[in-house]
Amino acid sequence: MPAAIADRLQGMIPPVVTPLTEQGAFDRASAENLYRSMLDVGVNGLFLFGTSGEGPLLNAAQQAEAVEVAVKVAAGRAPVLVGVLEAGTDRAIALARSVKDWGADGLVVCPPFYFPATQADVLAHFRAIREAVDLPILAYDIPVTTKVKIELATMLTLAQEGTIVAVKDSSGDMVGFRRLLLKRPPGLKLFTGAELMVDAVLLQGADGTVPGLGNVAPEAFVKLIAAWREGRMAEVVEIQSAIVRLFEVFLRPDGVLEVGYALGSMKTALKLRGVIETNCLCRPFPAVTPEHEERVRTIMTETGFL
Amino acid sequence: MPAAIADRLQGMIPPVVTPLTEQGAFDRASAENLYRSMLDVGVNGLFLFGTSGEGPLLNAAQQAEAVEVAVKVAAGRAPVLVGVLEAGTDRAIALARSVKDWGADGLVVCPPFYFPATQADVLAHFRAIREAVDLPILAYDIPVTTKVKIELATMLTLAQEGTIVAVKDSSGDMVGFRRLLLKRPPGLKLFTGAELMVDAVLLQGADGTVPGLGNVAPEAFVKLIAAWREGRMAEVVEIQSAIVRLFEVFLRPDGVLEVGYALGSMKTALKLRGVIETNCLCRPFPAVTPEHEERVRTIMTETGFL
Amino acid sequence: MPAAIADRLQGMIPPVVTPLTEQGAFDRASAENLYRSMLDVGVNGLFLFGTSGEGPLLNAAQQAEAVEVAVKVAAGRAPVLVGVLEAGTDRAIALARSVKDWGADGLVVCPPFYFPATQADVLAHFRAIREAVDLPILAYDIPVTTKVKIELATMLTLAQEGTIVAVKDSSGDMVGFRRLLLKRPPGLKLFTGAELMVDAVLLQGADGTVPGLGNVAPEAFVKLIAAWREGRMAEVVEIQSAIVRLFEVFLRPDGVLEVGYALGSMKTALKLRGVIETNCLCRPFPAVTPEHEERVRTIMTETGFL
Amino acid sequence: MPAAIADRLQGMIPPVVTPLTEQGAFDRASAENLYRSMLDVGVNGLFLFGTSGEGPLLNAAQQAEAVEVAVKVAAGRAPVLVGVLEAGTDRAIALARSVKDWGADGLVVCPPFYFPATQADVLAHFRAIREAVDLPILAYDIPVTTKVKIELATMLTLAQEGTIVAVKDSSGDMVGFRRLLLKRPPGLKLFTGAELMVDAVLLQGADGTVPGLGNVAPEAFVKLIAAWREGRMAEVVEIQSAIVRLFEVFLRPDGVLEVGYALGSMKTALKLRGVIETNCLCRPFPAVTPEHEERVRTIMTETGFL
Repeated sequence: MPAAIADRLQGMIPPVVTPLTEQGAFDRASAENLYRSMLDVGVNGLFLFGTSGEGPLLNAAQQAEAVEVAVKVAAGRAPVLVGVLEAGTDRAIALARSVKDWGADGLVVCPPFYFPATQADVLAHFRAIREAVDLPILAYDIPVTTKVKIELATMLTLAQEGTIVAVKDSSGDMVGFRRLLLKRPPGLKLFTGAELMVDAVLLQGADGTVPGLGNVAPEAFVKLIAAWREGRMAEVVEIQSAIVRLFEVFLRPDGVLEVGYALGSMKTALKLRGVIETNCLCRPFPAVTPEHEERVRTIMTETGFL
Repeated sequence: MPAAIADRLQGMIPPVVTPLTEQGAFDRASAENLYRSMLDVGVNGLFLFGTSGEGPLLNAAQQAEAVEVAVKVAAGRAPVLVGVLEAGTDRAIALARSVKDWGADGLVVCPPFYFPATQADVLAHFRAIREAVDLPILAYDIPVTTKVKIELATMLTLAQEGTIVAVKDSSGDMVGFRRLLLKRPPGLKLFTGAELMVDAVLLQGADGTVPGLGNVAPEAFVKLIAAWREGRMAEVVEIQSAIVRLFEVFLRPDGVLEVGYALGSMKTALKLRGVIETNCLCRPFPAVTPEHEERVRTIMTETGFL
Repeated sequence: MPAAIADRLQGMIPPVVTPLTEQGAFDRASAENLYRSMLDVGVNGLFLFGTSGEGPLLNAAQQAEAVEVAVKVAAGRAPVLVGVLEAGTDRAIALARSVKDWGADGLVVCPPFYFPATQADVLAHFRAIREAVDLPILAYDIPVTTKVKIELATMLTLAQEGTIVAVKDSSGDMVGFRRLLLKRPPGLKLFTGAELMVDAVLLQGADGTVPGLGNVAPEAFVKLIAAWREGRMAEVVEIQSAIVRLFEVFLRPDGVLEVGYALGSMKTALKLRGVIETNCLCRPFPAVTPEHEERVRTIMTETGFL
Repeated sequence: MPAAIADRLQGMIPPVVTPLTEQGAFDRASAENLYRSMLDVGVNGLFLFGTSGEGPLLNAAQQAEAVEVAVKVAAGRAPVLVGVLEAGTDRAIALARSVKDWGADGLVVCPPFYFPATQADVLAHFRAIREAVDLPILAYDIPVTTKVKIELATMLTLAQEGTIVAVKDSSGDMVGFRRLLLKRPPGLKLFTGAELMVDAVLLQGADGTVPGLGNVAPEAFVKLIAAWREGRMAEVVEIQSAIVRLFEVFLRPDGVLEVGYALGSMKTALKLRGVIETNCLCRPFPAVTPEHEERVRTIMTETGFL
């Protein structure tokens, strides 16, 4: 039941990567290992096919197998949320229906992309999906990829009418998120994708985080959440500071944050930890270079995460 | 044979809309009428599934039927080019293979979107598609939707190595296009999507145009091209000026160019002319309002295009 | 002595508006009242000629009188910092020299604007001013007006070599500020201009805030700082939440943040509180409308700040 | 008389650089030489203190001397236009008054910068200057530096009410310029700053050009204008193509257009031609490197301009 799922949404929900073989096929064994290791660390859910999960680059067969594995491994221990990141509404509905058939617990939907979307387009997109598929929806606000910010008024409308039950904010707009925190209707759960600001948004009332960096150091985020729940604020900030230092793994040596590079770092970290087999990415992303791998290893070691 | 097709690329190639029924299904009868009417006016090719064709919003069944109809109607009179506008390389290859099976003559490929792409990603994307499918490729440069400009060096590399045979420039960067015109390798055909600058780019050596506004007034662009070929430059500018006045149909009453609005104007114009049955758009675009229809009718009438 | 001043930089330093008469002249009486009322509330400094102070719109005579009044009113109770917001280096040095002559305690310098500046230009600009004038410099990072972000490496270089003693971050880039907080050299003081995120940055180790909204509710920020110093974190968040609600005064009725509108709100609030005489702005900003005044009054009343 | 000046505005009006000595002072001898050499080549006016002239970086003494020299050298042969590029209205009026006192023939005014300006701010700025100073005004549209586009409706209003007599369009928005060309009221003169599109805009009805590259090759633009007036269109395009090739001098070796680099190229070209003494720029721009000088020399030689 949607309501029940929404009640369970909280804490640390990693946007897990999608493990691939050297040939580019879905790597089932690695995925089982990845999902299980996340749950064993104590995460509060699994989010497949987000930006970190290379959602829009996968084909239907890969997606079906990944969700099936996640649902089996989770086995009710934590909700399985699945990204519906599609350029248009009809393709999104088709995927959403499949996701429900595959047994997932919720959808994470971003605005339609390719075409620059208006706020009216955003409303229409979410409403059509909600109407077509009976699964709770988290709104995924990520203008760096979709080109459109889900504006405050739009988000509040979607929440008040029951179209969405939660938000993953990856907009980088901390002030906008702050205003959303203060104006949200009862029951709307708010998560940040800004892994460097988790302490701040928890302080301000957020329900949790969906951090890409959670692929690299899931236990740090789980501990941060735990410290927060128990009121140990100094520890929260201390863990957060360690996470900020670790964040360098996402930056190229010249300091630039490039999405393909960051995705490579996530898979490399998991490979270095022995969780997944390869750090192969979907095309057109280039192969991770040995220098890149070495950089990830060095930073993880220096910051105590390896 | 790719080379043969590339040799035939020239003049006016409309990026045709995709006619839909009130229920959102592909409208076969309208499409036949549309494609035939374009060919009868004397266009030099048909381009399906571009931005005007709502390519990324269609499903595979709609796409298959549309290409099949276009190929049948064209019957070799003019090449049928088909857009491959996909967020990732594997999905793009899958579509490109289908396009070849459906009998089309060439692909129009844009950079991968959703994920912000680097120039290396752009190169990898085009090369992988070229390697996988034996059809000539036109590069579609449209950063307003894909977020990435295909830079001059990238474009030249793709052309020199034979990955692409032509370019549709919808970047709005007239200076960049100018530099491309002067540096292009022999055989690379250059088309502009900037319907208000056709006279200028022809003057500068371009091979033709792929104008969204060609859905509204195909005969004007065909006449402009003819006047140019025959050296009647004053007439070229005169026709172009009329086209600029007509361009107002794409702008909202407040002067803003909104893609969904412009798409609605295209289909409305074709409906008003009796070429297609409805002006319905793919979701999430809203229905064209009566005020919008009236505005299109008024501008077309005032500018002599209805 | 610079070092001594830097040591005193902390807490709440309002970027005060510049009161004008109906005729557009500097309003000396209102300014005296404004500066005194700020100091009486307990602010830790005065910052003249920032964005809130309409610095780049004032002439030299207005500037001279304003600084003179501020220095006289402050009388050593708190440092007087003066904005040097100029398009080029030579003009900036000329102003900085005057500021020193007028008796101020420090400079707040933003990157050169008009011409898009490189990081090398930014370095050269700050260094030339530092070399020419013996006053401590706060770097003012505000890309929304200057078009250039002072990148992390640039800021660290300026700090390490002693060119700057503090930073006012109005970049909106909370993650960048976080990284700066963790990497700053000893002694570099860090202030945020993001009035809605003060609790968060204090939690993360910032030294204080320079909030435009401090013109509207200086006592709220002073209390927030006090609560923080005394470890009453729940109260910090509570005050911050009230400030977020008050922030609506900066937004137009349609929710858009427009600088001229926000400046009008600041002066209106001070006029409503009886601190300054008029809410006139420098040209080309339009006069504050009665509707705008009413909106400010309503929001201030509803949020308990009037 | 304004009307008379406006009638004379046409053809090629170079936005001349401001020659400096090694010590950063205004180089009177070089300036005389520069202005005279431009007039001898046959330009139709001189535009001082534009972006190419580093206007916003000069002090009042430098400005006074430069205008005085230009007026003396021009001696009525061609109008002297002077840039009023200031962040706010009052400073702009002060400069405009001085410009009139110095004997110039017209003002070239850009929108207020620093503060993000609304269209209402733009209108108020131009109107206030027009009211305060009796000199004809050219509107300078250059959003890459001012952050604001002078929208079509704003430009038409300013023209219709007689606030401006001409436009220098450096917006890069060729489509917007095209619409302005078709909608302009009688008498409004239109110039492009896009040196690579002069042939195109002349074809479309523009009155001339104000090209930064005119510092490097004034005679090419003069010849282009002459060929156009005499209807030799093939020659127009040929000259324009040569200019496009020459344009590489403005680009860094990595292909990026950086304003400071381009300014350095202009002064270097003039130094190489023996017109001015140094290629020194205003601070904070860095000194031109030997490699940069060599690159300018090579490109000019290869393209036949040295």
